[in-house]
Amino acid sequence: MRIERLQEYISEKGLDAALITRRENLFYFTGSSPVLGGYLVVTPDESVFLVPELEYEEAKETSKVPVEKFKAGKGLYERLKSFKLRKLGIEGRTSFSMVQALREKAGVEDFDVLDEVIKELRIIKTKEEIEVIEAACKIADMAMMAALEEISEGKREREIAAEMEYVMKMNGAEKPAFDTIIASGWRSALPHGVASDKRIERGELVVIDEGALYRHYHSDMTRTIVVGSPNEKQKEIYEIVLEAQKKGVEAARPGITAKELDTIVRNIIAEYGYGDNFIHSTGHGVGLEIHEWPRVSQQDDTELKPGMVITIEPGIYIPKFGGVRIEDTVLITENGAKRLTKTERELI
Amino acid sequence: MRIERLQEYISEKGLDAALITRRENLFYFTGSSPVLGGYLVVTPDESVFLVPELEYEEAKETSKVPVEKFKAGKGLYERLKSFKLRKLGIEGRTSFSMVQALREKAGVEDFDVLDEVIKELRIIKTKEEIEVIEAACKIADMAMMAALEEISEGKREREIAAEMEYVMKMNGAEKPAFDTIIASGWRSALPHGVASDKRIERGELVVIDEGALYRHYHSDMTRTIVVGSPNEKQKEIYEIVLEAQKKGVEAARPGITAKELDTIVRNIIAEYGYGDNFIHSTGHGVGLEIHEWPRVSQQDDTELKPGMVITIEPGIYIPKFGGVRIEDTVLITENGAKRLTKTERELI
Repeated sequence: MRIERLQEYISEKGLDAALITRRENLFYFTGSSPVLGGYLVVTPDESVFLVPELEYEEAKETSKVPVEKFKAGKGLYERLKSFKLRKLGIEGRTSFSMVQALREKAGVEDFDVLDEVIKELRIIKTKEEIEVIEAACKIADMAMMAALEEISEGKREREIAAEMEYVMKMNGAEKPAFDTIIASGWRSALPHGVASDKRIERGELVVIDEGALYRHYHSDMTRTIVVGSPNEKQKEIYEIVLEAQKKGVEAARPGITAKELDTIVRNIIAEYGYGDNFIHSTGHGVGLEIHEWPRVSQQDDTELKPGMVITIEPGIYIPKFGGVRIEDTVLITENGAKRLTKTERELI
Repeated sequence: MRIERLQEYISEKGLDAALITRRENLFYFTGSSPVLGGYLVVTPDESVFLVPELEYEEAKETSKVPVEKFKAGKGLYERLKSFKLRKLGIEGRTSFSMVQALREKAGVEDFDVLDEVIKELRIIKTKEEIEVIEAACKIADMAMMAALEEISEGKREREIAAEMEYVMKMNGAEKPAFDTIIASGWRSALPHGVASDKRIERGELVVIDEGALYRHYHSDMTRTIVVGSPNEKQKEIYEIVLEAQKKGVEAARPGITAKELDTIVRNIIAEYGYGDNFIHSTGHGVGLEIHEWPRVSQQDDTELKPGMVITIEPGIYIPKFGGVRIEDTVLITENGAKRLTKTERELI
């Protein structure tokens, strides 16, 4: 069905073929993900997955699309040329050098970007994809549990991240979904405070933002705690973020747009007077990439539909004082939304 | 000096400016590496590092180049347009979408690829860079030590990788330099056998290929062991690979080309009758990227020079039987080469 939709698209657009080279899309369309990469050529009536010789045996076993090997050096472009590609659909992130080579060595004259049709397919997750994302979220919950147990006064942020990533890997994850964020004290006011050598001190806010990569799919969640007892201000902003996050999860459902959802969450924080301290969007799609569609922001009018997987992650950041963010990965269902990351949210 | 060389280059080529967007090059030229990315514009007489608003404060503290923030949305392209860029130098891996946007929104007419001048600069490491790479190699040695201690019958490959990556992170690494390879038994015949759920069994060859990312620089090393006692065939191929690797390190010195070094190593393996089982090149440069220049292969005539950092990593792979690879990261010095990864090589 995936390849068929691509074929339909290239026919509609009058393209000779589509060429897929990004790892996540190769996996999506072929079921195979060679370490050394590969080139999926889809024409209106055939599809061939070209891989380096070293990858041939493994790709043959995993690919749903016929596999062919090419020789290092000129092999790839000679084979591509044989398809007589004049108008070629490519991914927007295809490199300039590759585009140059396709012009010069494979005779391509015109390029069209395939991103819209790939988005249309990948934005709705199948039952099988949802199961894998649920498993990735379960691993993220385990890592969060480890963090909540391990964090204490005097430990370095990086040590906590090391423990969490160990738990992920021991539970089957390929690796962290992104550089684990452990941001304590003044660093918690940075939305992207990747774990550093800073020691965690008593009374500090600690933002823990993490996820696992499991069988090619990502998970993403954030919790914030205070080591020791929170002060009034910390409690205040925590309660606001918690309310916004919960109401966001309650509001997420088919029919609402990503922008509307962002507005609902944003307004709650603004009503408490912290609108200027919520300095990023409410969330983003999650799947084969950690940041994909829809963007839960003022710039995205996508209507939510069952099978979409998004994050809901409001935050309040006060420079020098610190920050709070609470985030879950959430599945849009027939009549609402289901949290796939399940660690409790009442932590302060 | 780095920016100056870039300016010299764009003047020679008649370009209006260079635009740098890749993370490793932004760090190389500015000393800053914003999580959300950035855009370094270098004209013949000025340089400006454009970053998203959220990154401004941090970039200002770390960047050696003047920093300016741009607003989300159109801000970036409007600012780029103000430079009046007609002929622009870009990295070969700049995306097709970005190139399109530069044409349509910033008025760029012609593009030239900067990769050669960036390579010319980055291929020779400074004293400061070498110190960081040495530290990255030291962490790789620690992780290898952990692997050699932990590997035993019945453990899963992934568990060993988890232990190693924990050791890396606890010793200051940002993360593994690449997906840690633990390839046991028949999997050791795969040159890229990323740690799987396979259990390690007695008598199996186990290839351990790993490295650390430390302060933006990579390390890379491989050792191979047998759990229990090796058999004759395992010993035979181990000895051949060890001889080839040692002679490769001895031969590496200023004046020899990367290709000649590959030939020396390759011939040793071929003389023992295993030429067809050495199915990859002898090595590659290591630095801000795990695979950079020179390529120690038949395709690269680069003359080795002091300050280059390369891997030397011959291997023999016998399908279904297993494989052996031994690899060090090596610094080219004034009169030879120095191993930066130091774990002993006599392990079988």
